[in-house]
Amino acid sequence: MHEFALIQKYFTDFPGDDSLVEGIGDDAAVMRPPKDHFLVQSSDTLVSGVHFPDDAPAGDIAYKALMVNLSDIAAMGAKPLWFTLALTLPEVNEAWLRSFSEVLRDLSIQKGVVLVGGDTTSGSELALTITITGAVKEGEQVMRSGARLGDEVFVTGNIGDGALGLALWQERIKSVVDAEPCLERFYRPVARTELGLSLGPLVSAMIDCSDGLFADLGHILERSACGAEIMLSSIPVSESLQSIASDDQSRTAMLNGGDDYELIFCAPASAKDEILSLANIHDCPVTQIGEITEASGLRVINDDGHELNVFESGYRHFG
Amino acid sequence: MHEFALIQKYFTDFPGDDSLVEGIGDDAAVMRPPKDHFLVQSSDTLVSGVHFPDDAPAGDIAYKALMVNLSDIAAMGAKPLWFTLALTLPEVNEAWLRSFSEVLRDLSIQKGVVLVGGDTTSGSELALTITITGAVKEGEQVMRSGARLGDEVFVTGNIGDGALGLALWQERIKSVVDAEPCLERFYRPVARTELGLSLGPLVSAMIDCSDGLFADLGHILERSACGAEIMLSSIPVSESLQSIASDDQSRTAMLNGGDDYELIFCAPASAKDEILSLANIHDCPVTQIGEITEASGLRVINDDGHELNVFESGYRHFG
Repeated sequence: MHEFALIQKYFTDFPGDDSLVEGIGDDAAVMRPPKDHFLVQSSDTLVSGVHFPDDAPAGDIAYKALMVNLSDIAAMGAKPLWFTLALTLPEVNEAWLRSFSEVLRDLSIQKGVVLVGGDTTSGSELALTITITGAVKEGEQVMRSGARLGDEVFVTGNIGDGALGLALWQERIKSVVDAEPCLERFYRPVARTELGLSLGPLVSAMIDCSDGLFADLGHILERSACGAEIMLSSIPVSESLQSIASDDQSRTAMLNGGDDYELIFCAPASAKDEILSLANIHDCPVTQIGEITEASGLRVINDDGHELNVFESGYRHFG
Repeated sequence: MHEFALIQKYFTDFPGDDSLVEGIGDDAAVMRPPKDHFLVQSSDTLVSGVHFPDDAPAGDIAYKALMVNLSDIAAMGAKPLWFTLALTLPEVNEAWLRSFSEVLRDLSIQKGVVLVGGDTTSGSELALTITITGAVKEGEQVMRSGARLGDEVFVTGNIGDGALGLALWQERIKSVVDAEPCLERFYRPVARTELGLSLGPLVSAMIDCSDGLFADLGHILERSACGAEIMLSSIPVSESLQSIASDDQSRTAMLNGGDDYELIFCAPASAKDEILSLANIHDCPVTQIGEITEASGLRVINDDGHELNVFESGYRHFG
């Protein structure tokens, strides 16, 4: 099947919106940017065998690819608007394409983000790059650099399930109990789109948890030129993680894991009530795990009050 | 070398401009869109062994990847603003990365387009996706759908060199004379950025020649619901093409070739003088090759006044 026919068949019945002046089918899409807003833009690539198993279902691949991009937009306190899809296929498998495009379309509709264009190419390795563009009111973008002394540190949801899902996929960990929730979290992470957008005006710094809590909070601290102290026992973990992983594995998943796509953010204490109220409205758990300190570096405090020795290593060292 | 270090070393010293609020280093870049403009956006992927030889120099790959994206923006009559780069690497080769990033940086500066973000991933196959965003005054975007009866049909530069370069690379054609100009054209195509932008208000429809003159002009005709008649002898070809290719090969390269990244456009006869004057200003040849007709379909008229039988096939059938 020729590229034009493939795009026509699977990617032209995605809905537009008022901001889309001209969609797929010309040299470029044409969009009307919202007034008095900045644009935010990010790209994420997923490669078969690297970011997902070679036999991952097409729908899971579509879901994850769009969600990890949405997560970056959420971490800016921005609203997603448009995305492009660059898809490299080793073969034209129509069942695969149907499933892939259906999930992508459903999720894009659910998240209110419009497919505006892209490219399909042949290649020996299945890979896809999504480039997403969002909008945030001028000057209200949430950067990693805004954390200040006295801020509290929060996370959404549970931390560590994504890394455990990855380890289960890679068979570095075997589970004797139901591992589905962690695998689901790895294959179908959930971007905190609505909460991220509403948190924008309240928080001082934000990042999404893709490389692990220790590394990602570390990015905030480095950019903000401050430190933080977090309590190990405060980090929210799922029942699945607790029942599948040993204490050591669990700690590694929580601190050095990744692929959670939860938000990590800092905010002044005065904003806490409103933050927890928003968490309630958006039905998304938010937990305070520590606070920003003047002393640089990230210290993790154990149950016994001592500092834990943690290496900033990201998911590669998990297992 | 870790992804962060790699990005830091090779991709953070690209210059910004007034529109770039925050560049590489956060969850997303932040940009200020120009007032009273629409945005145009396009993605193009190049895969090693498919779009360029496995042993193509890093600089040529960078050059071509950015140029083919710039060409899409030119074809909209728009000005390029920003691009993201998603790079998948089978290995971290620092000499390759240095050469790649230097050419990309130089070309982006020359073309006034700002690298705002991207992703680097590992994968078994070298591949890259550039997503480019440009701006055009509201309502002045040039679509494929605007050609009207009585319009004249023009092309920039020469047609066919890109396809001949591809055939020379694939060794489907062997040359006994100097093939460098055609190979150069294949490896380092030139987007008609400045001319495309200035043509915007004058032309009714425009496309860039990536799939071949017959197919690409065909896209305009289909979208504009009209036909065209072009004179074979009017199609501008290079001396290289004439000396390397047989008459048959030359005709195939001109009509069914691709990879030229010249502009094909339609404009009312009243605009011709101004178009030729702009061509002169921008030192870019523009040639009238035919005219839009009421009868649908694209007819190519041979030197003897008869219609040529051409199959709309794109570059795959060349050779």
